[in-house]
Amino acid sequence: MNNFTFYSPTFFAFGKGQERETGKLVKRFGGTKVLLHYGGGSVVRSGLLERVKASLEAEGIAFTELGGVQPNPRDGLVYQGISLCREEGIDFLLAVGGGSTIDSAKAIAMGVPYEGDFWDFYCGKRPDTALPVGTVLTIAAAGSEGSGDTVITKEDGLYKRGASGDCLRPKFSILNPELTETLPAYQTACGATDIMAHVFERYFTNTAEVEITDRLCEAVLLTMCKETPRVIADPHNYDARANIMWAGMTAHNNIVGVGRAQDWNSHEMEHQLSALYDCAHGAGLAVIMPAWMSYVAEHHDCMRMAQMAVRVFGCQMNFENPKETALQGIAAFRRFLASIGMPVNFEQLGAKREDIPRLVAMLNLKGGKTGGYVALDEAAVTEIYERAAAAELV
Amino acid sequence: MNNFTFYSPTFFAFGKGQERETGKLVKRFGGTKVLLHYGGGSVVRSGLLERVKASLEAEGIAFTELGGVQPNPRDGLVYQGISLCREEGIDFLLAVGGGSTIDSAKAIAMGVPYEGDFWDFYCGKRPDTALPVGTVLTIAAAGSEGSGDTVITKEDGLYKRGASGDCLRPKFSILNPELTETLPAYQTACGATDIMAHVFERYFTNTAEVEITDRLCEAVLLTMCKETPRVIADPHNYDARANIMWAGMTAHNNIVGVGRAQDWNSHEMEHQLSALYDCAHGAGLAVIMPAWMSYVAEHHDCMRMAQMAVRVFGCQMNFENPKETALQGIAAFRRFLASIGMPVNFEQLGAKREDIPRLVAMLNLKGGKTGGYVALDEAAVTEIYERAAAAELV
Repeated sequence: MNNFTFYSPTFFAFGKGQERETGKLVKRFGGTKVLLHYGGGSVVRSGLLERVKASLEAEGIAFTELGGVQPNPRDGLVYQGISLCREEGIDFLLAVGGGSTIDSAKAIAMGVPYEGDFWDFYCGKRPDTALPVGTVLTIAAAGSEGSGDTVITKEDGLYKRGASGDCLRPKFSILNPELTETLPAYQTACGATDIMAHVFERYFTNTAEVEITDRLCEAVLLTMCKETPRVIADPHNYDARANIMWAGMTAHNNIVGVGRAQDWNSHEMEHQLSALYDCAHGAGLAVIMPAWMSYVAEHHDCMRMAQMAVRVFGCQMNFENPKETALQGIAAFRRFLASIGMPVNFEQLGAKREDIPRLVAMLNLKGGKTGGYVALDEAAVTEIYERAAAAELV
Repeated sequence: MNNFTFYSPTFFAFGKGQERETGKLVKRFGGTKVLLHYGGGSVVRSGLLERVKASLEAEGIAFTELGGVQPNPRDGLVYQGISLCREEGIDFLLAVGGGSTIDSAKAIAMGVPYEGDFWDFYCGKRPDTALPVGTVLTIAAAGSEGSGDTVITKEDGLYKRGASGDCLRPKFSILNPELTETLPAYQTACGATDIMAHVFERYFTNTAEVEITDRLCEAVLLTMCKETPRVIADPHNYDARANIMWAGMTAHNNIVGVGRAQDWNSHEMEHQLSALYDCAHGAGLAVIMPAWMSYVAEHHDCMRMAQMAVRVFGCQMNFENPKETALQGIAAFRRFLASIGMPVNFEQLGAKREDIPRLVAMLNLKGGKTGGYVALDEAAVTEIYERAAAAELV
C-alpha cells in the first residue's frame, strides 16, 4: 500500500426531506450571501428550487440566482458566475442539481478569489483556496457532492479538463433519494454507469497488497449490480435509490481509492466523446470501459480482471485459464450495461467510427503514453476506440 | 434505509514516517500550545515520543506533557488533565497512543471549556464544543482516531461509560502502520477483534434494504479475515498491518454504519468484563460476541446471520435450513478468533462464572430491556454471559 492523505470534511445530510435543512446548513457553514446555481427546467418544475429558496429565506439568507448550467458544463457560464459573485459580494456557492451544476459551482468558487484566469486550475495549477460550496444533489452519478474534483468543457475547441483540490470539497451536501425518482430511466442508468466507472478506475491498479480498498470497491460494485436493475424496473423504489445514492458518494470521495495508483484512462477517453458529441458521460463510459477492459485483458496478466469477474459478477474461477474468467467478467459487465439500457457501441451512442483519428488527436498524447494500469500510446487508444465502435453483446 | 447525517472531517495522514508531519498538522489546525498526552513505556522506548516532540519543536509549538494513561482509561487522569490545560492555557490536545489515550484526550478536550463535571457527558449530555484533538495512532483497534466516540472508566465503582459528539472527531490523525509492528501478538489480535466487533455491532440490524452498508461492512470483515492471520504469523508484514489499520478506521468512523439501527449490546456486556477484570477490551469481545450471536440465532430469524456466514466466512448456504448455515458462521468466527490467540471462554479470559450476577447488575437494566437487534432483558444477558463462560471450540 502507498502512503496517502485522505480528507473528506463534507457534512452529509441524507434522506427524505433533507433539502429543508439547506438554509440552516448554509448558516452553519458561514454563508450570508449565496449564489444559487442550477441548470434548467427540472429543479424548477419539481418545485425543488422553491423549497430551497424558502429554506434560505427562513434563515434570512440573501441570494442571487444563476441558472442555465448545461450538461458537460461550459467555461462561459463560469466566467459569468465569477463576475456576478464579485459584483454582488457573494460568500457562498449553493449548487442545486447534478454533477454538472456542482462542477460549475466549484469552478466559480475557485475563480472568485483568484486574480488570474480560472482555467489555469484546469491546466494543472492546484487551487489553495475557494469560496465554500454546498450542494443539493438531484442525481446519483458524478460523486461531485463528496469529491474535490470538477470537470469543465472549454467552449472554444470543445475540450474537457479536470481540476482537483481539497478546498473544493463541499462544506455540506444534501442527498435526498426522493429527488431522483423523477429522473428518466436513461439518466438513472447513465448515473449508475458513471458510479461503477469511478470504482473501476480505482480498482485496476498495479499497487500490490491493497485488500481493504479492493474489498470496498467490490462492495460498491456489488451494490450497484443489485440495486440498479431495481430502480430501472421501478423508478419509485426509494430504498434502491437510497443505496445507489450513498454508493455514488462512496465511489468518488476516494475512501475506496486511497493508497493505490489509479487508472482514469477510460474517463479521459470518454471525455473526448462527450466533448465531441455532447453525449451523456455515463453513456460514453458504457461504450468505452468494456472496450478498455478487453484491450487490457490482452496486455496485462489477467488476475485482477479475473478477481473482478469472480468477486463482482459471480463468475466461476477457471484456475487453468484465468483469462477466460476475465473475459467472462467483461462480457457480464457489458450485458449488465445493456440490460439497464446503456449503449453497447458507437452507433448506439451516436458516435462515428470515422471520427476516431480526431478523438485520438483530442487526447493530445503528443506521441507519448498515458499512465495507469496499462500505459496507452496513440496506437493503443486507437485500438480501444475501434473496439468500442465495433462492440457487440456476447 | 433510515435518514442520517454523516460527518467525518478528520484529515488522515497514512503511511511510513508520517509522524514527522505532526508539528505541521498541529499548526495547520490552529494549535499553538499543546497538551501531549500518552500512556507509558512503549511510546517512550520506541523513540516515537521523541520524534513527535522534535516535530513540534521544529514548528515552534509549545507543549506540556501528561503521560500515564492506562488501558481502560480512568476519570482521575481526565480531571488532572482538565486542570492542567486550564492552568497552562492549552489550546490543542495531541494524543500519542492507542484508543485509551485518544479517548482520555477527548474527555479532557470536552471538559476544559465546560463549567460542570465532564462526567455529565458520559451520562447522556451531548457535547457542543471541545478543544481540538489530533492523534498519532499506535494500535489498530478502537477506531477512536476517526470517530466522535470516547469511553472512560469511573474509578469509583469501576464502571465504563461512553460519550459521543461530532465535535470530538479528531482534526487530524496520523496512521503509520510501522508503529504497530512492535506490538505483542496478543495485543494485535485484541485490536483485530475490536475492529471486527465494531462492524458486527453495525451489521446486525433490523433496518431493511441497506445493501451498500451491508457490503461495506463485509468488505472490512473480509479484509480482517485475510490480513489478521498474516500479521500474527509475521509481525513485520507492513502491508497486512496497513490494510488492518485502514480497516480499523473504516470500521468505526461510521461510513459502514449510516442509515441503519445498530446493536452495541456486545460492547455493553463486554464493558462490564473489562471494568471488573481489567482485561483487554478485544479479548472480552472475543468471548462475548460469539456467545451473543449464538443466543441471537435462537431468538431471531437467521437470514442475516446466514448472510454473514456465506458472505464473510465462505460457508455454503443451506437453503433448507438457514439456521444451520448461521451456526456454521458463528463456529467459523469462533475458530478464527481462537486461531489468532483470542480466549474462547471465561476461564481463558480470566473471568469467573460466579460473578455473572454482578456483571448483570453492573449493566443496570433496572428490570427493563436493551435496544438493538434482539432486545435483551436480565434473563437474556445472564444466558449470554453463561454461554460465554461455558463456550468451547467446535
